[in-house]
Amino acid sequence: MRYDFGSDNTAGMAPAALKALAAVNVGYARAYGADEVSERAADLIRERLDADAEVRFVFSGTAANAIALSMLAQPYEAVLAHHAAHVCTDETGAPGFFGQGVGLIGLPGYSGKIDVGGLYAALEEPVVGHRQPPAALTVTQATEYGAVYSEEELRRLIEPAKQAGLGVHMDGARLANAAAAGFDLKDIPRLGVDVLVFGGAKAGANCAEALVIFDKSLTRRIDNRLKQAGQTASKGRFLAAPILGLLESKAWDDGAVHANRMAQRLADGIEMGTSFVLAHPVESNAVFVRMPDEAHQRLNAMGWACYQFDDGSVRFVCSWATTEAAVLELLEAMASLG
Amino acid sequence: MRYDFGSDNTAGMAPAALKALAAVNVGYARAYGADEVSERAADLIRERLDADAEVRFVFSGTAANAIALSMLAQPYEAVLAHHAAHVCTDETGAPGFFGQGVGLIGLPGYSGKIDVGGLYAALEEPVVGHRQPPAALTVTQATEYGAVYSEEELRRLIEPAKQAGLGVHMDGARLANAAAAGFDLKDIPRLGVDVLVFGGAKAGANCAEALVIFDKSLTRRIDNRLKQAGQTASKGRFLAAPILGLLESKAWDDGAVHANRMAQRLADGIEMGTSFVLAHPVESNAVFVRMPDEAHQRLNAMGWACYQFDDGSVRFVCSWATTEAAVLELLEAMASLG
Amino acid sequence: MRYDFGSDNTAGMAPAALKALAAVNVGYARAYGADEVSERAADLIRERLDADAEVRFVFSGTAANAIALSMLAQPYEAVLAHHAAHVCTDETGAPGFFGQGVGLIGLPGYSGKIDVGGLYAALEEPVVGHRQPPAALTVTQATEYGAVYSEEELRRLIEPAKQAGLGVHMDGARLANAAAAGFDLKDIPRLGVDVLVFGGAKAGANCAEALVIFDKSLTRRIDNRLKQAGQTASKGRFLAAPILGLLESKAWDDGAVHANRMAQRLADGIEMGTSFVLAHPVESNAVFVRMPDEAHQRLNAMGWACYQFDDGSVRFVCSWATTEAAVLELLEAMASLG
Amino acid sequence: MRYDFGSDNTAGMAPAALKALAAVNVGYARAYGADEVSERAADLIRERLDADAEVRFVFSGTAANAIALSMLAQPYEAVLAHHAAHVCTDETGAPGFFGQGVGLIGLPGYSGKIDVGGLYAALEEPVVGHRQPPAALTVTQATEYGAVYSEEELRRLIEPAKQAGLGVHMDGARLANAAAAGFDLKDIPRLGVDVLVFGGAKAGANCAEALVIFDKSLTRRIDNRLKQAGQTASKGRFLAAPILGLLESKAWDDGAVHANRMAQRLADGIEMGTSFVLAHPVESNAVFVRMPDEAHQRLNAMGWACYQFDDGSVRFVCSWATTEAAVLELLEAMASLG
Repeated sequence: MRYDFGSDNTAGMAPAALKALAAVNVGYARAYGADEVSERAADLIRERLDADAEVRFVFSGTAANAIALSMLAQPYEAVLAHHAAHVCTDETGAPGFFGQGVGLIGLPGYSGKIDVGGLYAALEEPVVGHRQPPAALTVTQATEYGAVYSEEELRRLIEPAKQAGLGVHMDGARLANAAAAGFDLKDIPRLGVDVLVFGGAKAGANCAEALVIFDKSLTRRIDNRLKQAGQTASKGRFLAAPILGLLESKAWDDGAVHANRMAQRLADGIEMGTSFVLAHPVESNAVFVRMPDEAHQRLNAMGWACYQFDDGSVRFVCSWATTEAAVLELLEAMASLG
Repeated sequence: MRYDFGSDNTAGMAPAALKALAAVNVGYARAYGADEVSERAADLIRERLDADAEVRFVFSGTAANAIALSMLAQPYEAVLAHHAAHVCTDETGAPGFFGQGVGLIGLPGYSGKIDVGGLYAALEEPVVGHRQPPAALTVTQATEYGAVYSEEELRRLIEPAKQAGLGVHMDGARLANAAAAGFDLKDIPRLGVDVLVFGGAKAGANCAEALVIFDKSLTRRIDNRLKQAGQTASKGRFLAAPILGLLESKAWDDGAVHANRMAQRLADGIEMGTSFVLAHPVESNAVFVRMPDEAHQRLNAMGWACYQFDDGSVRFVCSWATTEAAVLELLEAMASLG
Repeated sequence: MRYDFGSDNTAGMAPAALKALAAVNVGYARAYGADEVSERAADLIRERLDADAEVRFVFSGTAANAIALSMLAQPYEAVLAHHAAHVCTDETGAPGFFGQGVGLIGLPGYSGKIDVGGLYAALEEPVVGHRQPPAALTVTQATEYGAVYSEEELRRLIEPAKQAGLGVHMDGARLANAAAAGFDLKDIPRLGVDVLVFGGAKAGANCAEALVIFDKSLTRRIDNRLKQAGQTASKGRFLAAPILGLLESKAWDDGAVHANRMAQRLADGIEMGTSFVLAHPVESNAVFVRMPDEAHQRLNAMGWACYQFDDGSVRFVCSWATTEAAVLELLEAMASLG
Repeated sequence: MRYDFGSDNTAGMAPAALKALAAVNVGYARAYGADEVSERAADLIRERLDADAEVRFVFSGTAANAIALSMLAQPYEAVLAHHAAHVCTDETGAPGFFGQGVGLIGLPGYSGKIDVGGLYAALEEPVVGHRQPPAALTVTQATEYGAVYSEEELRRLIEPAKQAGLGVHMDGARLANAAAAGFDLKDIPRLGVDVLVFGGAKAGANCAEALVIFDKSLTRRIDNRLKQAGQTASKGRFLAAPILGLLESKAWDDGAVHANRMAQRLADGIEMGTSFVLAHPVESNAVFVRMPDEAHQRLNAMGWACYQFDDGSVRFVCSWATTEAAVLELLEAMASLG
């Protein structure tokens, strides 16, 4: 089976990430994240965001999102999320586990972007004792369906949420792809995001994400919180190094530009060379295709791993590692199907 | 500050671990642990333990221990542990977090080994509704104070525990050091351990431990459990590869033999060349020294990171990376103190 | 404001419940549920169900349901429930709180009854690591919309659920009303229900429900579980006595027969004497009415407390205490509205 | 078996409590605590404490304490408590269950009073990431061993705790007995207590405690919190009424005066008429006696329920219901033993 387009997680580490990991393997370093490598990586992230945020490195996006939400909502409260957001559909209920039952309220919207009307409706629900009222909003940039919010679109969601007293979390597992699509990272603190998950794995690291906390009132005893949650790296330098390497080398950016370009190339090829229809606009590194079940199965049988999503379309993901040759091979395979 | 002896986590990755990590960075692989590297590493662990166990790789020993204990004890039950075990003193209450309030009952014993009499006393407590009765026993091999249980010593703890219906967890963060001290890994399933944490980080990996589940009744939906707990690696091959490399190359074993030998060298030097007294027998890779506060502070001031433990002694830890030159330098510094 | 029809919880204690409570207030009794009153009440419940179940009395239906579900589903699993079930919409996420994040999957169906096709669809979903697979089914008898399942209807839900390995919970907050509508309580164990919440409060007690556990493998350390969850009565006799009184006197049954009859009376009056339409068949003690917002508000303004439900209809509930005079007054008010 | 002295929970409801419960059983009332009875009972509590606190009625002291502590400490933090406090020894780990793993740090001290030196030692521990640092202090008034703190003694504990940023909880399960011993309830808010559990059950109610929250920053969405935790009474008036009756009639006070007097009578009789020694000063309603195991067993065999405590002494508890005749009978039995 070929996993080129199956997920952004089937790709390996980008050369810059691996190189940085190897480079920090010299001598001794303080344990548990109090090392220089972690500090330098945190500095680079703060610089990219132009904000004096607290930064911690964790192993998993699932944990990063769940811990972030547990900072913003109590167990008897809920988080407003797009119904197809990763926290709703792909994290095995981790927000409820880390947040001791915190609720998720699914909102509608095209291509994974939350519909403003849906948000208002949720915010206008009266607070009653027998339901979990919203305490936080989570937005995903880029979305699960590959869309990229404009600054203005985010403002229209974040402003009313903050006015209603909600905290705001951004799931940036594919933040690099959003940035490559033109989104300005410095808008994140300006818009009032309280906690950001700054994606590493999908951008070319192994398993590493940064938890970026803009609201300093949330960082009290953050190291105790992370240690208890099993997200403190004993040998912290190796967790931070791949992200450091990606940022220093700009491979974090360049890889995403490449991934987005490959996705565009694939999308163009599908539109021009096959009878399949795109299910969503292609704004970052994923292409969603409306495809009969039979065609999907034949593509799998031809060796191409790809999965059906909740909206019924089939997803193809590009990464820093995607080659144009592979895109052409896939297009050829798809063309042969109809 | 020199961190040579501060912790086993201040050392870097052993060459075999890093090499293996780099070696698997080729092409695409299935995500979320369903890759070949994870499978090969699991096979090697099963072989070493001579048991058909379920094996999963996780990021952190704290999470591994807490998840293991949550398999064995319900929230309204407790775990019997040495009062100085890592789960009791160094994991920020993670067992209670992952186990929704599961209790820890601290047992006495020299050098981190649980006293058999203390265990019997705990097992004989009547079960009453207003307390958390024990449901599991955890043993640490090697212990926090560097002692290594003999097979017979473990049997005397595990047998009565299992007869009382308890599950058994072994924290093997320093299992390699115990093995290097003569402990036979194949005794672990023979003794009836239900869940083992097979240590990677302290043995030369970056951050990676293996959760080894001998009791198959505990593995139902284990992948859902780990995913929810934020311990599923999206790019699983990179989590398993360092352990694979250490095991294939025997660096897992050789590094521990070396670490133990360095600790013995240090202990001998302390006994012969200084006025300080060893607080515990040196059976694995750590040396605990009775030392006046002032001497401890002077040693720190001379640049040697080292920490006081709950029993008042100061700990020095050796690893695969410890050099004899460093041991001699440290001994010289200690000799100058008295 | 008149609360006659606002909820089944606005009524007081039925005379038999209060009398029994007063009657047990003699001398001393063992604490924490180990008293004779609790035992006698448990015996009566076992007799009514014709089953050798374990019975415990708890304070709140929300806790009873949540604890029952936590017996049947792990945090990384989910419970299948009608989307309008009380556990989904009216218990502030208690299943997730007591169950450490356990998920709820809402199923469709008319009048609160789970649609068989919806259940099959949920059971046929493949188990994947990144979602919470179902481990339990909960059914409500009578449903939130006042419908009563026939034995056959329940069998069509419970059989496939049990074949798929799920546990089954029945929320019987209004079980007395279902029984009064002809449902045979002895079908509950016969159908394979594992845990039943046997309703007390809505049947005329103050705040008291019985947790009835048919599957004895679930009762291990149940008293520790309940004590930890804050649901053990220190003075247990006073928690059990009202249910004892209701069962001994048959007021549990007679009150529900009366409540159902009053609901039928109200429904008939609405159909014959007003222009409003019933939203659901009236099978137990609640009447749901399609009513313009303005009419609803005017009814409130006339002093009648009543609430709009998720399906847009307005609910009127009858209880053991409802008088025919009140029904007539309400009908008159409604008739005046249109 | 005679349960007269076995526990304060073996007594029934005081006449004033039962009378009030019966008295409120008239007509309809708003559900879920929004009723007039709850409001009047809350007013009386505020009056007694001379403070504008938020008051809620809950079913169980275990839940009340655990919920209070979860307001004051995060899962990765700990609560400082006397090692023999009810929350440590008699609530099956409820603080960890409601608080998702929140830790308990046991402090020493005679007769259940926390030793000031022990408190300072705990407060001076450095905050490190791998332990749960203290975030709250809990004091019990009167203590588990029947001692009553003076205002000055409480100040010496509460002041340093608050200066260190900790929240303060008071477990007042036997607050009536402390008040009867001369403790001024109005000192509670003056001393800076943040959350008080105002005892009902042991003072003559059935199962009812009041959660009194002085720090208004903690009350946000308190009704959602309680509902989720299964501690919201559907028929709230019946939960509040017994406390209302006890306070209005002063039976809350008088019963405790009587209980304390009976305990004093018993203690005097033991000192004068038996060879047994009191283990603790008798300041409220409990008498702890040093007694050989054999004597304890013979007393049980003579029909007197009484229990050995963690300090080895045997406890005898008096309540509003204790008769002097029973005290004399017990003294006679004890005298016969030696």
